[in-house]
Amino acid sequence: MAQERPLILVTNDDGITAPGIRALIEVMNKLGDVVVVAPDAVQSGMGHAVTIHSTLYLDEVKIDEGPQKEYKSNGTPVDCVKLAIGEVLHRKPDLIVSGINHGANSSINVIYSGTMSAAVEGGIEGIPSIGFSLLDFHWDADFSASKHYAEIVAKDVLANGLPKGIVLNVNIPKLLLSEIKGIKVARQAHDKWEETFDKRQTPHGRDYYWLTGVFERFDKGTDTDIHALNNAYVSVVPVHFDMTAHQWLEKLKFLEK
Amino acid sequence: MAQERPLILVTNDDGITAPGIRALIEVMNKLGDVVVVAPDAVQSGMGHAVTIHSTLYLDEVKIDEGPQKEYKSNGTPVDCVKLAIGEVLHRKPDLIVSGINHGANSSINVIYSGTMSAAVEGGIEGIPSIGFSLLDFHWDADFSASKHYAEIVAKDVLANGLPKGIVLNVNIPKLLLSEIKGIKVARQAHDKWEETFDKRQTPHGRDYYWLTGVFERFDKGTDTDIHALNNAYVSVVPVHFDMTAHQWLEKLKFLEK
Repeated sequence: MAQERPLILVTNDDGITAPGIRALIEVMNKLGDVVVVAPDAVQSGMGHAVTIHSTLYLDEVKIDEGPQKEYKSNGTPVDCVKLAIGEVLHRKPDLIVSGINHGANSSINVIYSGTMSAAVEGGIEGIPSIGFSLLDFHWDADFSASKHYAEIVAKDVLANGLPKGIVLNVNIPKLLLSEIKGIKVARQAHDKWEETFDKRQTPHGRDYYWLTGVFERFDKGTDTDIHALNNAYVSVVPVHFDMTAHQWLEKLKFLEK
Repeated sequence: MAQERPLILVTNDDGITAPGIRALIEVMNKLGDVVVVAPDAVQSGMGHAVTIHSTLYLDEVKIDEGPQKEYKSNGTPVDCVKLAIGEVLHRKPDLIVSGINHGANSSINVIYSGTMSAAVEGGIEGIPSIGFSLLDFHWDADFSASKHYAEIVAKDVLANGLPKGIVLNVNIPKLLLSEIKGIKVARQAHDKWEETFDKRQTPHGRDYYWLTGVFERFDKGTDTDIHALNNAYVSVVPVHFDMTAHQWLEKLKFLEK
């Protein structure tokens, strides 16, 4: 007797035509019935943004020849997850996968990442959810090692589930599959961006800015995602969305008046 | 001998002309030298979005007669904090305050909130930072109790600082000052939105959606922000930005291959 195939929702923040999501769809088609709801354009850096002051569109599209059903939206990655559950699937999927992002979402990037926010939104809904990111932001990046590890992690999560309130942040080093040593479960490194602004002038004489910056390493720990990635491992960070710093609840009682 | 006044950065997500930020500026003018860098339009629900694929503008403006210096930007609340530090102040301020938001940012709303993301960005930069929100989303909300408590909490933080990596999420109930019982330090309630979409058609026959929903309470704890607010207290949640679920690091080792 055939077992029912799991229903898998795929989304991303680089837009529905990005090679990263096409690679992820290809892998997920092996593991279940795939529905894609993804942004119609690049939405990277959108964090956990939702669209409440403008309207959302949702259109069925056919991008390639796979068996998956696909929809594009003008919304953010988080909007796409909400639209998928509410207006496309009319149920919760068995798994949500987001990515494969073109570029790292390790360390503090988890908080700016549209890829990870889509996964976190799945977690808030109680759905096992994983964000995948490759440490290569090029459009023509090589996703073959990422596909291999996306399949391993997704199979594991489909088989074992995830603890309530936990989503996975998976980053893959920019290496050949043969060069990657395996998977490490790690904590988010306490590193950050040092921003600079590239100040320019419009042809009409008005100043404007591009946000740029360099990623600065402060955290010397050997149990971090950055350390794992720098040592040729795929990093898996269990991420939660309780932002409370529980260890400070008692110590900040002096604020009570 | 006069002590140097602290430098206070004020921002928000409802836009620089919102009554909530005008109330916060009024309070902060009493406590220090105030610089405002805030969005030129409503940016609520923007989460931790940053602008990396389009250009940022930054213009000095004069909104009212106070002593503060003010700048508006087309960027997100997080962009405003980055622009303020990098291009306006050219140093880190002594305090960042964000708000007063028109509407609650208790419970899971912390993750969608532009108000709180601006404060979190300050925390990432190592600056004592506080987000303030009033449980009344009306434009003509009464901010008098909020002003009272914003002054108390900001003074406390200016005097004592905050632990590294901690920002405060302060919510004020929609009550008269005389009805509020005081301040409670609390954890983020594990509640969530149940979304629905209001599906409509454009005059040209294309479907579109408005994101709507109701806030559902699941968490029956008496130590939560929602419980404090429902019992006439101002809630203060210490928020961190390490998204790692540390308690699951060991238990998820089975993912290592």
